[in-house]
Amino acid sequence: MNVHGQHYRTIWLKPGDPTVVQIIDQRRLPFEFAIEELTTVADVALAIKEMHVRGAGLIGATAGYGMYLAALHAPRTALTAFQAAVAADAARLKATRPTAVNLAWAVDRQLAAMAAAGEEIDARIAAAARTAQEIADEDAAFCRSIGEHGVTLIEEIARRKHGAPVNVLTHCNAGWLAFVDYGTATAPIYTAHDRGIAVHVWVDETRPRNQGARLTAWELGQHGVPHTVIVDNAGGHLMQHGLVDLVIVGSDRTTYTGDVANKIGTYLKALAAHDNGVPFYVALPSSTIDWEMRDGLAEIPIEERDATEVRIMDGRSSDGIREILIMPESSRAANYAFDVTPARLVSGLITERGVCAASEAGVFSLYPEKRR
Amino acid sequence: MNVHGQHYRTIWLKPGDPTVVQIIDQRRLPFEFAIEELTTVADVALAIKEMHVRGAGLIGATAGYGMYLAALHAPRTALTAFQAAVAADAARLKATRPTAVNLAWAVDRQLAAMAAAGEEIDARIAAAARTAQEIADEDAAFCRSIGEHGVTLIEEIARRKHGAPVNVLTHCNAGWLAFVDYGTATAPIYTAHDRGIAVHVWVDETRPRNQGARLTAWELGQHGVPHTVIVDNAGGHLMQHGLVDLVIVGSDRTTYTGDVANKIGTYLKALAAHDNGVPFYVALPSSTIDWEMRDGLAEIPIEERDATEVRIMDGRSSDGIREILIMPESSRAANYAFDVTPARLVSGLITERGVCAASEAGVFSLYPEKRR
Repeated sequence: MNVHGQHYRTIWLKPGDPTVVQIIDQRRLPFEFAIEELTTVADVALAIKEMHVRGAGLIGATAGYGMYLAALHAPRTALTAFQAAVAADAARLKATRPTAVNLAWAVDRQLAAMAAAGEEIDARIAAAARTAQEIADEDAAFCRSIGEHGVTLIEEIARRKHGAPVNVLTHCNAGWLAFVDYGTATAPIYTAHDRGIAVHVWVDETRPRNQGARLTAWELGQHGVPHTVIVDNAGGHLMQHGLVDLVIVGSDRTTYTGDVANKIGTYLKALAAHDNGVPFYVALPSSTIDWEMRDGLAEIPIEERDATEVRIMDGRSSDGIREILIMPESSRAANYAFDVTPARLVSGLITERGVCAASEAGVFSLYPEKRR
Repeated sequence: MNVHGQHYRTIWLKPGDPTVVQIIDQRRLPFEFAIEELTTVADVALAIKEMHVRGAGLIGATAGYGMYLAALHAPRTALTAFQAAVAADAARLKATRPTAVNLAWAVDRQLAAMAAAGEEIDARIAAAARTAQEIADEDAAFCRSIGEHGVTLIEEIARRKHGAPVNVLTHCNAGWLAFVDYGTATAPIYTAHDRGIAVHVWVDETRPRNQGARLTAWELGQHGVPHTVIVDNAGGHLMQHGLVDLVIVGSDRTTYTGDVANKIGTYLKALAAHDNGVPFYVALPSSTIDWEMRDGLAEIPIEERDATEVRIMDGRSSDGIREILIMPESSRAANYAFDVTPARLVSGLITERGVCAASEAGVFSLYPEKRR
């Protein structure tokens, strides 16, 4: 998508130097647009863990490039040594964030691609390079398809409203910054906007890290989509008063039964949507589906992050980016990063293959090859 | 309640100078404990509007003292001139905050008390002084009673949990800082704690003004009650996992049918409590009940405050209190201050006369004299 009118993805190989991975350091948005270079697996692990990059798809794509760097820097003395080093890096990358399923999915895909490339180390490195690119390209293509499928929901509401702006509420950032391009929750919005449909987005600020206020607002603004930032507390009130036509959120992991793990607070918006008859859709590429898990609430691990993210806020002051303490020094804080929205509260899933019910039957109707 | 071990109310007449009202400037908590002096109705109106004081009961008590200052400074040339000035000040005070019902209730009580004091201006001023004190004393006494009635709910859960800490979640600040003393939502908590019952409080930070993180956490800390600050997004997840035994919130206005206007986001917590079978109680003195309103969602006016409160955060940095911008400069924000929780989601109301169902029948069972 566009940044100051120029097209960017969220991750790419440095032009002229394919041993360097470049990312947008998202911790500095919206105040600064900074490109960061990653040259080692340690760089990649830190970038994922400390959230220089974040979001289901982008974590996967970054892990894909991380595995390429792992192959590139593994010892070439013997295949066993090469394999051992790559396996250790794979484990290291998988341990960075526990909730996002794309992470393990991308790492495992790389391991399989390298294994399939035969006994030559050069061939394995080439396979890792190719697969990293494939994961990124596929992510972008899937998000584009999600936009095509999801836009029909917006078009339908626009027709019913006779062209009055369609109000979409979204939580956190499931925009292009969370993927390689286009985004998931935002893809139908961008597609609608590009087709000339009037759309307005309520952007949940999404405490504690404010990915909505910082990232979603920024990327919608860069693309010219009208939007209003609200606190996470406001969505229920807006829905009670008919000010939300549609909720679209992303997902960090979705069970094949339709339970959705997403940024903490998503469940509360789903409850409000359900209570007010507002359609609540989840947009996700199939790489986000966990084909092993039946019960999201019982089984999906929920990451607990450092309480500092709750205690300290950062933003732009009159003399640059500053950190401030926003509660008593002596009070404890807790920081649960995700919650699980049960399938019963989800109107449907928007995937790269189409829209389906948030249920085992719905999911397998689009992905019959996954049925075992 | 205690501040650094010394007893304070939130508002009082300056010792030795009964023409000066003193308040705690709550905008500076928890980082600074500052006493502010109010000497004119303009001071009082500003203090309410700009939230130096806030919270249902304290807004009422402050308006009560404001009417006393109005009487004190009204022209004494003739009763008509005195009355006209007092009436203008009454209107001015009522216009400061639209949602809190205690405001109009306190102003009207003062007008009635002055009218009942006869034709002498001195008698009217004396009545206003007496009534201001009465409103404050009654507020404190009512909150104390709310604690006595509400503690039974906590005691019951403590028995069921065999003494394991009772986890209470609260939203915003309905603590002593929101009243004259004790608070409403916090009163049962303080009473339980003082009786030696193990209580732990989940404190919603309560964006945009963070009254939970700033005020509730501070006052619980000053009283030694164990507590943990969480983002507003977290409550649903905690309830899904059995980590909340009871929700108690306050109210800015409650209809006689049991619909509850309270800080924005309360409705979302009520939905989550309902979805997870967690009891959801609202603690309020009867001065908060609107005896004219049947349908809270349709009738209670919801204040929209300046978007700056969403865009800018303040807190303590390494060099003092600083303000930071937390979203793109060019993005719009909206700031709805309250929402309405329908009676169907409320387990019960805790009032100074006891606990009742959140319904017309429940409310009138405690306040039969209000039935018309």
